[in-house]
Amino acid sequence: MNPIRIGLLGCGTVGGGVVQLLRANADYLAQSVGAPLEVVSVLIRDTEKERVPDLDRARLTTDPEAVLGDPSIDVFVEVMGGVNPARGYVERAIDTRRSVVTANKMLLAMHGAALVERAVSKGVDLAFEGSVGGGIPVVRVLREALASDWIVSLEGIVNGTCNYVLTRMRTDGLGFDEAVREAQAKGYAEADPGLDVDGHDAAHKLVVLAMLAFGARVEAGRVPTEGIRAIEPIDHRFAERFGFVIKHLAIGRDRGEGVELRVHPALVRRDTQLANVNGVLNAIALEGRALGPTLLSGRGAGDLPTAVSVVADVLDVARARRNGFAGLATRGIQVKERPLTSLDDVRGRYYLRFQVHDRPGVLAQLAGALGDAGVSIEQMVQEGGGGGTGQPVQIVLLTHETLERDVRRALEAIAVSSVAASVPRLLRIQE
Amino acid sequence: MNPIRIGLLGCGTVGGGVVQLLRANADYLAQSVGAPLEVVSVLIRDTEKERVPDLDRARLTTDPEAVLGDPSIDVFVEVMGGVNPARGYVERAIDTRRSVVTANKMLLAMHGAALVERAVSKGVDLAFEGSVGGGIPVVRVLREALASDWIVSLEGIVNGTCNYVLTRMRTDGLGFDEAVREAQAKGYAEADPGLDVDGHDAAHKLVVLAMLAFGARVEAGRVPTEGIRAIEPIDHRFAERFGFVIKHLAIGRDRGEGVELRVHPALVRRDTQLANVNGVLNAIALEGRALGPTLLSGRGAGDLPTAVSVVADVLDVARARRNGFAGLATRGIQVKERPLTSLDDVRGRYYLRFQVHDRPGVLAQLAGALGDAGVSIEQMVQEGGGGGTGQPVQIVLLTHETLERDVRRALEAIAVSSVAASVPRLLRIQE
Repeated sequence: MNPIRIGLLGCGTVGGGVVQLLRANADYLAQSVGAPLEVVSVLIRDTEKERVPDLDRARLTTDPEAVLGDPSIDVFVEVMGGVNPARGYVERAIDTRRSVVTANKMLLAMHGAALVERAVSKGVDLAFEGSVGGGIPVVRVLREALASDWIVSLEGIVNGTCNYVLTRMRTDGLGFDEAVREAQAKGYAEADPGLDVDGHDAAHKLVVLAMLAFGARVEAGRVPTEGIRAIEPIDHRFAERFGFVIKHLAIGRDRGEGVELRVHPALVRRDTQLANVNGVLNAIALEGRALGPTLLSGRGAGDLPTAVSVVADVLDVARARRNGFAGLATRGIQVKERPLTSLDDVRGRYYLRFQVHDRPGVLAQLAGALGDAGVSIEQMVQEGGGGGTGQPVQIVLLTHETLERDVRRALEAIAVSSVAASVPRLLRIQE
Repeated sequence: MNPIRIGLLGCGTVGGGVVQLLRANADYLAQSVGAPLEVVSVLIRDTEKERVPDLDRARLTTDPEAVLGDPSIDVFVEVMGGVNPARGYVERAIDTRRSVVTANKMLLAMHGAALVERAVSKGVDLAFEGSVGGGIPVVRVLREALASDWIVSLEGIVNGTCNYVLTRMRTDGLGFDEAVREAQAKGYAEADPGLDVDGHDAAHKLVVLAMLAFGARVEAGRVPTEGIRAIEPIDHRFAERFGFVIKHLAIGRDRGEGVELRVHPALVRRDTQLANVNGVLNAIALEGRALGPTLLSGRGAGDLPTAVSVVADVLDVARARRNGFAGLATRGIQVKERPLTSLDDVRGRYYLRFQVHDRPGVLAQLAGALGDAGVSIEQMVQEGGGGGTGQPVQIVLLTHETLERDVRRALEAIAVSSVAASVPRLLRIQE
């Protein structure tokens, strides 16, 4: 029986995991597809340096043409990462009517909608379970729930580095820099952690999820995005005091006229499932109109969990190809431009931390500025001070539900007054 | 284009939800399958009494032959529940080479392995996502993870009634009977709640999960099963004091030589995801060798969540049929008899609550009996007493990790002594 011939583009940790799983489960996969799966060529950057799977070295090449130009290949698996040259390779694979499995969230965030359209127009599959949430089957669940349901909202912990750093800060009192260094030492953070801790990686994943869940084509750069650098140990302590933990979230909501997308740290009630997703684990909570609330969690990164997702996609795509049809992975994805809701128009509760000089009347000034902007205070706690010594003290206010626009207005008024000793910290409360 | 013709067996709440979702998403489903889906006949018990979907009444029948004997039907959807007559209907559908989608956990628990074999031998699909965990796509996730992974263990909150009752007892101090009455009033528990609160429903679901995850054919009646009737409010209070909550769990573990399956209430650490799955929500945690820990949670019952799962199955099965192949849903399920591990051979920590007469030396007697059996005590707390008045007091001991056999032996020795005023309560700690 003719094998399904696979071309592997890139062979880092995920690619190595894919080769390993394809080999270890060859019999099962062949039975399930109805034909054996064979990795016929692997595009790598440097045959000497790169981690190379235990494969016949004749199958390894540094020449893209040798892989992409081989008309015998049925399915390309793109695990190189980055936008270029991955984008051109994927486009070429689609244009020559081969199906593609990719785990490349950045590529999908930048060009996902166009690539899906391209695949649909050529009648091939473009599967990308591995691009979001590692081994968590969120793409599949969204695709299948959407067969008969309407996704109202989603919120997720989609960056393992952020979750690890926040977890260590909270449970062991580490500072941000110390927690990042530890994550780097354990291989959970890159040498340059910016893509993760500044929230960009989470924004990329949110754009991919929004494409599926809300049919929204959104530029990643336009998603309001905050990272976790500004969170201090004191914020974890205050959050705990109010019954919350701080998580870095990617949030999406279908608002009918548009979509609300945002990435930022938020206070989450301690007794919720999301609050208890710790360390490098990821989780995505969905709310479907028929399905109700659904949560998926697991390892969001790492070679093997992501490879499990990639192999599940390879299985689907190969099976479809073997049976003479395709487009399973992209069918039903209908993407269009949808306006983004401004953060100003989001309603919620807020955690506001002010460092102020301990003088009588300070709280009244803060409360007054908030009240003038129409923001009412639900709880207040002060740490230190009380003697009127003029020393800096910390005041934390939790607001009632209010428009973000109004909170911003109050903070601006406070900034130009002389009440606060430093820039106040604003954290959103996610309920 | 020829439609895919569907015969619906049973039309209660889930069946009604299926009809509703098929209609509401007809265009999408037709596009996705490549042919429209048409419900051509519906077998009901009583055309007058039953909740009847908004369908041409000519399609409703109380005559099984009119549905099962119609050779034009491509796919049967069985949502009657119960073993008989559903079993015969499903067998006949398979034998006449039609694919079947079922949400019937009891049927699958009793005859799942035989039905899967039958479907495989006839080359048709037997899909059953709706049978476990309502809208939670656990069957699909297991099937796809298994394409390249090995499931080591699973633990789940799979009965919404039990979870609701335990949640209400814990958070609001209700007694068992009161919480059950409330669940009944809200439609979360049957008039006869035994199937749920005695753990049998959870055992059925565990048997279905074990078939998928471990390839194990196990009789539901042989799974060690305990319900939640014996849990008292005081147990919730003690559990909380030690940092746990009480959950009703279905637990499975592949032990190589056999499988360990058990259903019982257990203490779960408060800061875990499972501990925070509350009310009628269900959750299933899996541990895959490559995938690591994965958790899925959502509404475990209800017409619409289950109907979403059934429709996702119908979509798969119809698409396969339309494309001239089948067996997707059952492929890779390889079931064989596997020995069950005795509870005696399970290792774990235990919560033991004794009601004793408040006399000097009582604790020493308890500790002595446990020590004689090789069980060591990690923590102890006593409620009430201390005056040596002979009044009943509560003593709770948490053991170190030990064999259940040894704990049982100690409890037997204590039972024949005159130390305890009543039968001690044993709860397992799940970590």
